[in-house]
Amino acid sequence: MSGLAGTGGAGRPVGDGVGAPVGATGVTGPAEGRRRGRGSRRSGRRGGDSGTREAILAAARTRFGDYGYDGATIRGIAADAGVDAALVHHFFGTKERLFVAAMRLPIDPSELVAAALAPDGREPGRSLGEHLLLTVLRAWDVPDVRATFLGLLRSAVTSEQAAGMLREFATEAILGRIAGAATPGPSGTDQRFRAALVASQVLGLALARYVLELDPLVQAGTGDLAAAIGPTLERYLMGDIRRGPAAAGPG
Amino acid sequence: MSGLAGTGGAGRPVGDGVGAPVGATGVTGPAEGRRRGRGSRRSGRRGGDSGTREAILAAARTRFGDYGYDGATIRGIAADAGVDAALVHHFFGTKERLFVAAMRLPIDPSELVAAALAPDGREPGRSLGEHLLLTVLRAWDVPDVRATFLGLLRSAVTSEQAAGMLREFATEAILGRIAGAATPGPSGTDQRFRAALVASQVLGLALARYVLELDPLVQAGTGDLAAAIGPTLERYLMGDIRRGPAAAGPG
Repeated sequence: MSGLAGTGGAGRPVGDGVGAPVGATGVTGPAEGRRRGRGSRRSGRRGGDSGTREAILAAARTRFGDYGYDGATIRGIAADAGVDAALVHHFFGTKERLFVAAMRLPIDPSELVAAALAPDGREPGRSLGEHLLLTVLRAWDVPDVRATFLGLLRSAVTSEQAAGMLREFATEAILGRIAGAATPGPSGTDQRFRAALVASQVLGLALARYVLELDPLVQAGTGDLAAAIGPTLERYLMGDIRRGPAAAGPG
Repeated sequence: MSGLAGTGGAGRPVGDGVGAPVGATGVTGPAEGRRRGRGSRRSGRRGGDSGTREAILAAARTRFGDYGYDGATIRGIAADAGVDAALVHHFFGTKERLFVAAMRLPIDPSELVAAALAPDGREPGRSLGEHLLLTVLRAWDVPDVRATFLGLLRSAVTSEQAAGMLREFATEAILGRIAGAATPGPSGTDQRFRAALVASQVLGLALARYVLELDPLVQAGTGDLAAAIGPTLERYLMGDIRRGPAAAGPG
C-alpha cells in the first residue's frame, strides 16, 4: 500500500483536496533518477530499480494527466521515463495497474469490484446488490481508502481534466466489470446503463454520507444502509428498469 | 431569475467552481423598488433601498459563511448591515429566502421541492418518485439552475465550511419537506433517513451525469432515467427499506 501524501488519517481528509491524486505533491520529481540510455549501471540494481520505478510512475502521472487514461500509452510513458516499454510491463503489468500505482490508490478498484461481484464471497441470504454495497462500505471504512476516494472525487468535481481521466479509468476498470455482471434485461436494456446507475447511487451515497455528512446517513449502520440501498443496486443490475410500453413516457 | 456570473451557458460550467454561490457576483435584487417606511427620504428612494438590500445580502453571505446556516441569525445579519432586523424581514421574509437571495440561487429549492411533491402537478400514471425525478431533471435542464447547483456541489466538496452551510440549509429547506412526504414505514423507519436516501440518489445522478459525465447517463433520455430511478425514489419514500427480522444483518 503506497502512502498517500496529504490525505491519510481517519475522518474526512482536508488537504488541498485537488492535488493529491492528479499531480503535484511532494513527490520525487519526475526526472529524478531518470537515466537515459546509460547502459552502464554501476550502483546496486535495487536502488536503480527503485529510481526507475519512480521515474515511470512520475511519467505516468504526467501522461495520464495530460492525455487522459485512454490517451496515455505504456509506450509514451516509457519514452518519457527513458526506459523500454517492456520494462514498464515488467514492473506494473497492465496500464490499469500502472494507473493504480501512479495515483497511489491504496487498493485496486478492479479487485474491489471483483470481490464485490464474486458469488462465493457472499453470505447466504445476501443479494448481489447488498453484497456489493457492503463491500464498498467496508472499503470506505479504511481511512486510507476513504481519503483517497474522496480526494479523487474532489479532483473530479473541480477539474474537468481529472474528471475525464477518472471517467475513462472508471469506465474501463470498474463500470465494465459491473456491466459484465448485469443482466441484459427483459427488453435488452444496456448493461452499461445498468452499471452507470449503480455508480450513481454508490457515488451519491459517498457524497451524502462523507462529504455533506447528512446526519441520517452518517448515523445509519452498514446493515441499515445495505437493507435500504442493496435492493436498489440489485434492481439496477438485474431488475426491470424500463417502463412498460403502455406507460412509456417521453424519451 | 437572476444571472449567475461566471457559470451560465449550456453544458458543464467551468468557472472557478467554488466562489460563485458562496461569494460574490453582482445581481440586481428581486426587491429592487421595494419601499419601506420612507416618509423623509429625499433622494431616489430606489437607490437607497437597493443599497440597503445589497448591504444586507453582503452581510448575510458573510454570516452564513462564518456561522453556517443554522448559526446565522437575522438579528446578527441586520446588525452587521447596520439595519433593523424588521427591515431584513421586510425585504426577504424568512431566513430561508434570505439565504436563497444571498446565494443568488436562480430558483428557490424549497419551491422546487414543493412542486415535486405536489400531488396535483403529477401526470396520471406517474408515481411520486418518477414525478420527483422528472421535476429535478427539468430544473437541471435550465443552464442557470444547473450551473448554480453544480457550483454549490463544488463548494461543498472542496470546503468543509460550505459543506456544513449547505447541509444545514438542505436539511431544513429540502430534506425536511421530503421527509414530510415520506411514509413513517412499516417499522417506524425514520422519515429523515428516507429523505436522505432520496438525496443520495439524486445527488449521485447529478454527479455521475453532469460532473463525471458517464456516457450511458448523459445519453439517457429523461424518460429512461425516470423509469429507472423513479421507482428507487418511490421506494425510499414509501416502501419497505428494512430487512425482515429473520434476515437482519449486522447493524
